[in-house]
Amino acid sequence: MARSEPHSRADYSLFWPLQTRWGDNDAYGHMNNVVHYALFDTAVNAWLIDQGLLDIHSGKLIGLVVETRCSYFSELAFPDSVEAGIRIAKLGTSSVTYEIALFRQSETQAAAQGSFVHVYVDATSRKPVALPDNWRKILEKIT
Amino acid sequence: MARSEPHSRADYSLFWPLQTRWGDNDAYGHMNNVVHYALFDTAVNAWLIDQGLLDIHSGKLIGLVVETRCSYFSELAFPDSVEAGIRIAKLGTSSVTYEIALFRQSETQAAAQGSFVHVYVDATSRKPVALPDNWRKILEKIT
Amino acid sequence: MARSEPHSRADYSLFWPLQTRWGDNDAYGHMNNVVHYALFDTAVNAWLIDQGLLDIHSGKLIGLVVETRCSYFSELAFPDSVEAGIRIAKLGTSSVTYEIALFRQSETQAAAQGSFVHVYVDATSRKPVALPDNWRKILEKIT
Amino acid sequence: MARSEPHSRADYSLFWPLQTRWGDNDAYGHMNNVVHYALFDTAVNAWLIDQGLLDIHSGKLIGLVVETRCSYFSELAFPDSVEAGIRIAKLGTSSVTYEIALFRQSETQAAAQGSFVHVYVDATSRKPVALPDNWRKILEKIT
Repeated sequence: MARSEPHSRADYSLFWPLQTRWGDNDAYGHMNNVVHYALFDTAVNAWLIDQGLLDIHSGKLIGLVVETRCSYFSELAFPDSVEAGIRIAKLGTSSVTYEIALFRQSETQAAAQGSFVHVYVDATSRKPVALPDNWRKILEKIT
Repeated sequence: MARSEPHSRADYSLFWPLQTRWGDNDAYGHMNNVVHYALFDTAVNAWLIDQGLLDIHSGKLIGLVVETRCSYFSELAFPDSVEAGIRIAKLGTSSVTYEIALFRQSETQAAAQGSFVHVYVDATSRKPVALPDNWRKILEKIT
Repeated sequence: MARSEPHSRADYSLFWPLQTRWGDNDAYGHMNNVVHYALFDTAVNAWLIDQGLLDIHSGKLIGLVVETRCSYFSELAFPDSVEAGIRIAKLGTSSVTYEIALFRQSETQAAAQGSFVHVYVDATSRKPVALPDNWRKILEKIT
Repeated sequence: MARSEPHSRADYSLFWPLQTRWGDNDAYGHMNNVVHYALFDTAVNAWLIDQGLLDIHSGKLIGLVVETRCSYFSELAFPDSVEAGIRIAKLGTSSVTYEIALFRQSETQAAAQGSFVHVYVDATSRKPVALPDNWRKILEKIT
């Protein structure tokens, strides 16, 4: 796996604002590497909810995470404000590969970036389902 | 609210082993005050499951937390091993006040202690229900 | 300990915006009781940093938490936006009792409220120190 | 990035026991994908401390995480007991690529597996340093 180069803001068209928390800083005084994934989850799911696609409690479709990764380039730390750039690298039949870059406020180069793969499944059976048209139409905008 | 004195192991008969995590340590190098509550939740719910009372996924009864508190006496930190002493201060019709003390392995005095109040509700309606006999019988053992 | 009544926004003059995260929701589909304390920590410390008082990395003074409590009145859940009302119930020589109420956006009654007591100590010796004048002056504004 | 196949216990010689927590379960009733990384961090760092290598508070060397990834094969959930298999895929001059597989108690196939890359740096200057002999000798045992 070749280590990737930091993305810039120009590589993204969709951004989501994120807040850091006191407890995000670990014993080394910076944001623990685990927290970046909590921010990925938050940015993508908040956007899906905002777009009227995901409904955590009563939707027919939920997204299960099957693969995640992250490269860390520079430190983030509470009380930093962060913006997540979000784009879709691959839009499959029932799976979506999101790429997310985390930018410290006012910086143009990503402090960290990664990807995660959602497989969309029926909320009850947990079996993969083809993404419906209303999902596909919106997801294509950031592909 | 008068600040309480640290309990000793002799004040408890039920103990539950707990593991600390790397990310529990905050920027000050000790366990963040928030984590103590994650340990309370874990100890009490793990014991309830172990006793065959709580079933997270398909039980009729779930416990909702309505009140919590904690006093911190001395630092805990990853990689400490911790034991939780658990006892019931008040066993009501549908609510239970648990007291939990966290002991660093090999220490007899609590590093922190607190309480939390569970109200037991119907998993679907989320309305309080009287604790069934099988629950009451087991809970009385640590009251 | 008598269970308190929910505060209203009118009881506070200082508010701090807070963001919920995907992972804040637990198996019962609402914000886990532990997360409220992560929000308390974040709101108070972010405000102290914003006021130029707290400096996590190189300040002489740090705040250690010795007592916390919270009452839960109604559910919060990701993706709720939350505002924390912050006020000081007791301003001691070296300790401060903060009261924090969490309001779901657009609601006037607190979904949860609690308090936490910070003892301010020397960052190196970890011994309590009297709050300096510049701290006291700002803290008095919300007392 | 080809999705990897689940490892078996036979692929590892070093195992570290891990405890799940109540709050690890998310709104979908299983362990949130973020928590797996908290377990990776905990297993590797606890082992390094146990071997007398890492000293969080006063050691000269600390490990900074520059790259992480995880593949999820089957659900884990509180109150599962988990064991982490740990091995080293690449032992560089100052960096180490750990591979970690998470096994649900009594299962032989990994529920999830991933890797993370630690770069070891001077605790003060945060500049990479060559791994000392006592580190290298122990790390080679699981390479």
